[in-house]
Amino acid sequence: MKLKRIVIIGAVASGTKTAAKARREDPDAKITLITEEAQISYASCGTPYFISDIIKDSHSLIVREPDYFRKMLNIDVLTEHRAESIDLKAKNVEVKDLKTDQTITVAYDRLVLAVGASPNIPEFEGVEHGNILTLHNIPSANQIKSLIRQKKVKDALIVGGGFIALEMAESLIAHGINTRLIIRRDQILSNFDKDIAILVQNYIKTKEVQILEEDEVMEFKADTDGNVTSVVTKKQTLPAEFVLLATSIRPNVQLAKKAGVEIGRTGAIRVNEKLETNIPDIYAVGDCVETAHLLTGKPVWIPLATTSNKHGRVAGINITGGNDTFPGILGTFVVKVFDWTVAKTGLSENEANKNGFVTETIIVPSNDKTHYYPGSKRIIVKLVAEKESGLLLGAEIVGDGVVDKRIDVVASALTGKATIEQLSKYDLSYAPPYSSPMDPVITAANVLRNKLEGKTNSISPLEVKEKMDRKDDFILLDVRTKPEYDSGHLEGCLHIPLNELRSEMDQLDRSKEIVTYCGVGLRASHAHRILRNAGFEDTKFMEGSMAAWPYEIVK
Amino acid sequence: MKLKRIVIIGAVASGTKTAAKARREDPDAKITLITEEAQISYASCGTPYFISDIIKDSHSLIVREPDYFRKMLNIDVLTEHRAESIDLKAKNVEVKDLKTDQTITVAYDRLVLAVGASPNIPEFEGVEHGNILTLHNIPSANQIKSLIRQKKVKDALIVGGGFIALEMAESLIAHGINTRLIIRRDQILSNFDKDIAILVQNYIKTKEVQILEEDEVMEFKADTDGNVTSVVTKKQTLPAEFVLLATSIRPNVQLAKKAGVEIGRTGAIRVNEKLETNIPDIYAVGDCVETAHLLTGKPVWIPLATTSNKHGRVAGINITGGNDTFPGILGTFVVKVFDWTVAKTGLSENEANKNGFVTETIIVPSNDKTHYYPGSKRIIVKLVAEKESGLLLGAEIVGDGVVDKRIDVVASALTGKATIEQLSKYDLSYAPPYSSPMDPVITAANVLRNKLEGKTNSISPLEVKEKMDRKDDFILLDVRTKPEYDSGHLEGCLHIPLNELRSEMDQLDRSKEIVTYCGVGLRASHAHRILRNAGFEDTKFMEGSMAAWPYEIVK
Repeated sequence: MKLKRIVIIGAVASGTKTAAKARREDPDAKITLITEEAQISYASCGTPYFISDIIKDSHSLIVREPDYFRKMLNIDVLTEHRAESIDLKAKNVEVKDLKTDQTITVAYDRLVLAVGASPNIPEFEGVEHGNILTLHNIPSANQIKSLIRQKKVKDALIVGGGFIALEMAESLIAHGINTRLIIRRDQILSNFDKDIAILVQNYIKTKEVQILEEDEVMEFKADTDGNVTSVVTKKQTLPAEFVLLATSIRPNVQLAKKAGVEIGRTGAIRVNEKLETNIPDIYAVGDCVETAHLLTGKPVWIPLATTSNKHGRVAGINITGGNDTFPGILGTFVVKVFDWTVAKTGLSENEANKNGFVTETIIVPSNDKTHYYPGSKRIIVKLVAEKESGLLLGAEIVGDGVVDKRIDVVASALTGKATIEQLSKYDLSYAPPYSSPMDPVITAANVLRNKLEGKTNSISPLEVKEKMDRKDDFILLDVRTKPEYDSGHLEGCLHIPLNELRSEMDQLDRSKEIVTYCGVGLRASHAHRILRNAGFEDTKFMEGSMAAWPYEIVK
Repeated sequence: MKLKRIVIIGAVASGTKTAAKARREDPDAKITLITEEAQISYASCGTPYFISDIIKDSHSLIVREPDYFRKMLNIDVLTEHRAESIDLKAKNVEVKDLKTDQTITVAYDRLVLAVGASPNIPEFEGVEHGNILTLHNIPSANQIKSLIRQKKVKDALIVGGGFIALEMAESLIAHGINTRLIIRRDQILSNFDKDIAILVQNYIKTKEVQILEEDEVMEFKADTDGNVTSVVTKKQTLPAEFVLLATSIRPNVQLAKKAGVEIGRTGAIRVNEKLETNIPDIYAVGDCVETAHLLTGKPVWIPLATTSNKHGRVAGINITGGNDTFPGILGTFVVKVFDWTVAKTGLSENEANKNGFVTETIIVPSNDKTHYYPGSKRIIVKLVAEKESGLLLGAEIVGDGVVDKRIDVVASALTGKATIEQLSKYDLSYAPPYSSPMDPVITAANVLRNKLEGKTNSISPLEVKEKMDRKDDFILLDVRTKPEYDSGHLEGCLHIPLNELRSEMDQLDRSKEIVTYCGVGLRASHAHRILRNAGFEDTKFMEGSMAAWPYEIVK
């Protein structure tokens, strides 16, 4: 029997995982890994922590050396080799040895494209100057780290507001560098709803990161050595001896395109559930492919290390004659931003609406464990549901407490197509060091249930701000205690503590809309129900109240 | 309209929650809370942490004071009042004021039994001596704490091996007390499988807790003041100036029974999904009721604070004319034991088998985050699945890493009736500080999938030990490196490092059963597949390998 020849192009996460899994499935196949890079099987996700010195040695980011694949798995590894083209008829790949410039031809029975993604370089004037870099692999991380160390960078600019931008802002601040982040919109994290993103944004500002909002790079200026010295934006000119370009990335599809492999609407390679492309015997995995969103069924391109690893397993099974499928993703995402954790799964309110869902949402702050257990911290949960069915659609959770656990619970619930009511009854673990008897996710689900069932009515802080800005004629009612009110409240509010509300409600104009607020929304919700039960017709509570209010307060 | 009269007996978690929810649903109902105790709405789960001094003031365990219920929620609270009997015809409760001994009659339209559970007092000789206590509320916690402080207890005995026993062992060790735990069986945590329980047991022993296994209290001896001084067990006599009885608890059903309320097979009050008892207008909630197990459909009595809180909500809605249901539980459980977290959800292998499931299981140790991120720690995951369908049935997870997140993911997956294959493709969150690209639960699911699909065969450490004890004729093959082997290995093993296995396998007897092992099971599994592919017919790997091996090793 002729041995199966498996060729895999790309050797970071999905490529090496495919190779290793294929070997375990088929002890005899001839497997070849081809990569332009000198290193394989490394953890690019760890590079910001290497730059910040949390990880001292870039070597520890390498999961496996080429020799492990060669000796332990009997896999050929061609590093610093670039796949130039694919010959579909002859079923081979033309590969150039980047050290010798010689070209070889590698035949395949099954070909796997694991070619990843690359940073986009925006077309700013002067973007070619020295020390304007991207972060996408270990060499680029080493380059940034030496620059910071040797040049004693004082001012840095990060272009973009996504997760790499945020992780790198933290890394640069750790080195004592004046760090500015420039974003075109008025919010970081464009895949988040503004009401949540803005809370993260406010927090980051307390960590001395300057955020240039609704601004844009016009030009980079350089010194006589050609190294960047400053940036001219739409609004200002600022010093910068280091610029990180972190605007966006794109899938590497040139090789695939040239060979006639179908590219999807997202711009990434199109594959079916078995990770097959349109060309027989060519598979594609990892950051270069699009995948179905589990909630919309539509193709999305959300490159994630978790997907890459799962893809490797599925492809490794399928190319060796097995049968496995990859169902799709929720786009579950988590990032550490200083002492906060910022996470999302499923659809944001904005994304859900764009996809045609009529939604109901809630924002609920909670402690991450029992109030009495030391180290209990605040997290803010936003849940999104389909209004009619109550089907859970997504969550965004942020704060300095334990966020990742809750986002994983919601991701699991989304996979199980849970409704908000079902989620509210999940049997989650509890002991004082870990949670509350009502976990924050369950509490949020309960509050949203009340809203879905018409028992309560609420409004988000951003909507309240819009009402204030529009100068709507409504009563903003602070129901906290006097000391809480005195320590800071919203402009133009009326103050009646909750325990006086029953006796004092006659002073409220029943013809007006009343928005109650308190510390986290609990008392406000209670006040709202008291008023509603007393016949007030147009009353709502402000979700998350002061804990989720991202704007100015007065004293 | 006549106002609805709601009477709730019991005012810790489920009782107060029912009252508060009922008030939010019905602003006018007359609500009365009745309790024998002086305090209401307190967190009994926090008492071990109060005793250990992690929580300084027992007052902080009180969630709400009676006055909050009276003033803010307009709820009558009768503390130190005991409900003596229920008159079903007259629909009232006879209540004795424990301070005055006077009896009053409280009429109800809806009655809720939230009477909780109490510790069982085993019938040991001398169990009535002083300083032999149980821990079940704030006064008993205060009593234990003052005893420890004032009497300078040197030796303590805890009878039982459940979660209160373990939490209290930690609390007593924190006070420098010689702490012994006596258990009848050879394992603590009787709801866990032995292979996992024994790992916890070994860990606890390293924390200086002495565990008297397969032993039993025969008698307690006292000094002339009547205070306990020592314990005589089946095997030995030991000093003990403080004894904690933590063997088991039972639901408080006397009042219900007397009134003709149906008691279920578990010994707890039987209710339907709406939390109605067999008697019209009488509901029961919290620790005194049994509930359906979501996986077996059978009634179980697993009292949990999480259930109590959810029950309160459901009952609060239903007694005020609404319609809510409580679907059942998974028995999700977590406990902090020194620096380990010990958690379980769904069925253990043992429980699944007892319930008629044919199971397949796996034990997989993993790091809780990426290996390169500082503070990455080990957790050990055991998954249980139905063999034929691959349906997930439960998990036990232990270790000093982040366990609670993973148990909640499995609990969520169980609720969604996920198979192991589906779980292996969950889109969980990942960034280096939080997890690995393949979360430990996903890795474990993948390893179990291999087993379910017949690609691998494995054996648990306990089964290996049994084979060794039986002196089975098999080859135990250590495939680790020489330094690892030298640092300690299993008795009677053969050593061939994985990278030499292909060249050295000829020295292995093909007619014999071969069990491979390594550090955590990964290389062992790989070795097993190499041997199998080479035609070895009877080969398996030892799950979890050295990381899950709880017995002696040799050097």
